[in-house]
Amino acid sequence: MKTIINPSINAWKDLLQRPQLPKNELDQTVKDILTNVKQRGDQALRDYAQQFDNANISSIQVSENEMEKACNLIDNKLKEAIRLAANNIEKFHESQRINEPYIETTPGVTCWRKSLPIEKVGLYIPGGTAPLFSTVLMLGIPAKVAKCKEIILCSPPNEDGQIHPAVLFAANLIGIKKIFKVGGAQAIGAMAFGTESVTAVYKIFGPGNQYVTRAKELVQQYGTAIDMPAGPSELLVVADDTAIPEFVAADLLSQAEHGVDSQVMLITPSQELSQEVMKSLASQLDELPRKQIAQEALENSTAIVLNNLESCIDFSNQYAPEHLIICTEKDDMLIQKITAAGSVFIGPYSCESAGDYASGTNHSLPTNGFTRQYSGVSLDSFLNKVTFQKLSKQGLKNIGPAIETMAEAEQLQAHKNAVTIRLNTLK
Amino acid sequence: MKTIINPSINAWKDLLQRPQLPKNELDQTVKDILTNVKQRGDQALRDYAQQFDNANISSIQVSENEMEKACNLIDNKLKEAIRLAANNIEKFHESQRINEPYIETTPGVTCWRKSLPIEKVGLYIPGGTAPLFSTVLMLGIPAKVAKCKEIILCSPPNEDGQIHPAVLFAANLIGIKKIFKVGGAQAIGAMAFGTESVTAVYKIFGPGNQYVTRAKELVQQYGTAIDMPAGPSELLVVADDTAIPEFVAADLLSQAEHGVDSQVMLITPSQELSQEVMKSLASQLDELPRKQIAQEALENSTAIVLNNLESCIDFSNQYAPEHLIICTEKDDMLIQKITAAGSVFIGPYSCESAGDYASGTNHSLPTNGFTRQYSGVSLDSFLNKVTFQKLSKQGLKNIGPAIETMAEAEQLQAHKNAVTIRLNTLK
Repeated sequence: MKTIINPSINAWKDLLQRPQLPKNELDQTVKDILTNVKQRGDQALRDYAQQFDNANISSIQVSENEMEKACNLIDNKLKEAIRLAANNIEKFHESQRINEPYIETTPGVTCWRKSLPIEKVGLYIPGGTAPLFSTVLMLGIPAKVAKCKEIILCSPPNEDGQIHPAVLFAANLIGIKKIFKVGGAQAIGAMAFGTESVTAVYKIFGPGNQYVTRAKELVQQYGTAIDMPAGPSELLVVADDTAIPEFVAADLLSQAEHGVDSQVMLITPSQELSQEVMKSLASQLDELPRKQIAQEALENSTAIVLNNLESCIDFSNQYAPEHLIICTEKDDMLIQKITAAGSVFIGPYSCESAGDYASGTNHSLPTNGFTRQYSGVSLDSFLNKVTFQKLSKQGLKNIGPAIETMAEAEQLQAHKNAVTIRLNTLK
Repeated sequence: MKTIINPSINAWKDLLQRPQLPKNELDQTVKDILTNVKQRGDQALRDYAQQFDNANISSIQVSENEMEKACNLIDNKLKEAIRLAANNIEKFHESQRINEPYIETTPGVTCWRKSLPIEKVGLYIPGGTAPLFSTVLMLGIPAKVAKCKEIILCSPPNEDGQIHPAVLFAANLIGIKKIFKVGGAQAIGAMAFGTESVTAVYKIFGPGNQYVTRAKELVQQYGTAIDMPAGPSELLVVADDTAIPEFVAADLLSQAEHGVDSQVMLITPSQELSQEVMKSLASQLDELPRKQIAQEALENSTAIVLNNLESCIDFSNQYAPEHLIICTEKDDMLIQKITAAGSVFIGPYSCESAGDYASGTNHSLPTNGFTRQYSGVSLDSFLNKVTFQKLSKQGLKNIGPAIETMAEAEQLQAHKNAVTIRLNTLK
């Protein structure tokens, strides 16, 4: 991790850059997979399970029996931890439910909104080395709170044709019944188009590798909604010399271990803190099982010493980080100045991993600077807001003439007529 | 408009189809335009204005002088109508502002959300035969209410190099200062990438032709957010024999005049109402200036007689209409059963044109069945919801062990360490 001291404002532009990802050339592969799934349904899914996951799956859907077995494999300590996290996540997402008021915009003209659940949603949970059961909670719980009627989950099988038991336990805890042993771009295709086993859904959520990401982009063009665009994960820490260097270093490493393309930034007015953090990074890094990954990520990463905390938060706003930790003596003032971030962690005891797992906030967040225009997953992500209006006779009398004038000016005579024909009966 | 009486459930599938749009082959054209704008900036915009709009524009931005002149051209009646509409739209969108609570999910663990405006947004207003100043209000007012720092507007110039004065008046009323004489795919490129004159924005809103639509889809893949996918406009009316046939016919025509690809549906348990509406349609259609368009749209459209109102609303839910008018003796019961719609109009005096112009609700709505997974434009569309959390020492003691257990099970040791290193200081 390199350190840059007092860069000029002109130098900020380069420092704000994300690691450049190689442009991928997967389009044809992903398109072929989607077409195959659309045409051949379950049979295509079975073939891909064999080809990509080396798994022979007779039944694509996880059976009740498999579910029960999986749940029995999880030890009680992990079960309790998952229950605690689920409880907090549910509480926080439940608090996001709002009843909006009826608004009489003009006497006799009443408008309101109502939140309706998206009827069918699909959750994708990647496989790979670690089972991301925490993501099951982060996507499944708000879907349940929203009361989505159909919630399905796809995750790739291992070589024994099984999904990791912790993923199944988390899904079972939430009450997700339809779980499919399907991974990769083929899972996205199955959820977008439907197969004999897998229900087609209206919106797809969840992280994934570059094939999954590209498949989500492509099905979006056919009308399936997706949660948000994908990009490498990132953390920016704003800290001053009241911060504890070992804590800061631990937080930077917790982000860096995600992947070699992760980026971590330390922005501080204190050169001393920066030096202490670097020392602690070196010693903590040595003990990590994912040392290699974290080390590579740190090579993309920078500590920047700026004149004062205001400049630090200004830099953070321009960077628009996914995760932002603020640990300074002026936290309350600084958080008022934030203009773009995904999730903000305040003070010495609010480590990023709290929000990753168990505090209650969602860990599905926009990355890569997309916090400027996207929000993280929340209850809202599973709801549609529908507007309603009811005009009384007097209401139409009050606003009808304005509608007539505007419709005529827009040369939409039939729009005007719909008002005139009614007003004529009210004369 | 054809009438179908008591179709079997099997026949619903076909009746629920939207008119098929021809797959467009614009990709290369649109990509070339975007690349040219990215590389040549303002000069490309000037060239395209010449080429596509037959306009010679020396200054791309509308000057204060041009703005003043335009406002003087609008007659007072239209000004008053626009002000009335703006006032209602502002009231309704202001009511969508929410202050979310601080939630203590576990003692010592406090989580909350804060809405931050998207800093830079771009509004696209099409040119063409009619000036869509109402859309300026529908996009500009929530952007202002959200307090977006930079709101820019692009609209194509006419042959005199001017934007329609009603569009400029509406923009001026809202306080939008940066207005550019740029139309088509080049406007979308300018707002996505920025040019010497046009600021790059984070999210682009507004309707447009197929070039604009495709350009929005393409820039989305580079990270610029867009309001929603586009499709032809539509109206579904659920009415029984308490409805006034002339009102229903007028509403169907107000939708049909939008474009030849518009679709209107009448779903009713009353064959008599259906017949009366058809008669009234014929006589009202004859007097419309946009008769030709409306007539073509009606050819894509259907009246369906079903057994009862419950079936009617069931059909509507499966169709998931952009606009839904409900005019029956059971309105209150029926609106409880709605599962998908963009904007709902209740009772005999709530014509669609009320919501198109002046009641206060937004007219930028998902079409083409996309109400299943997208909401219309609202204050939310201009805000990002950011999560915050603060853990006390006790808070971390309460949830820290669960985080450690979960992080370890996900094989993310550094995530665990960030908790452990803190808990060790609290022993």
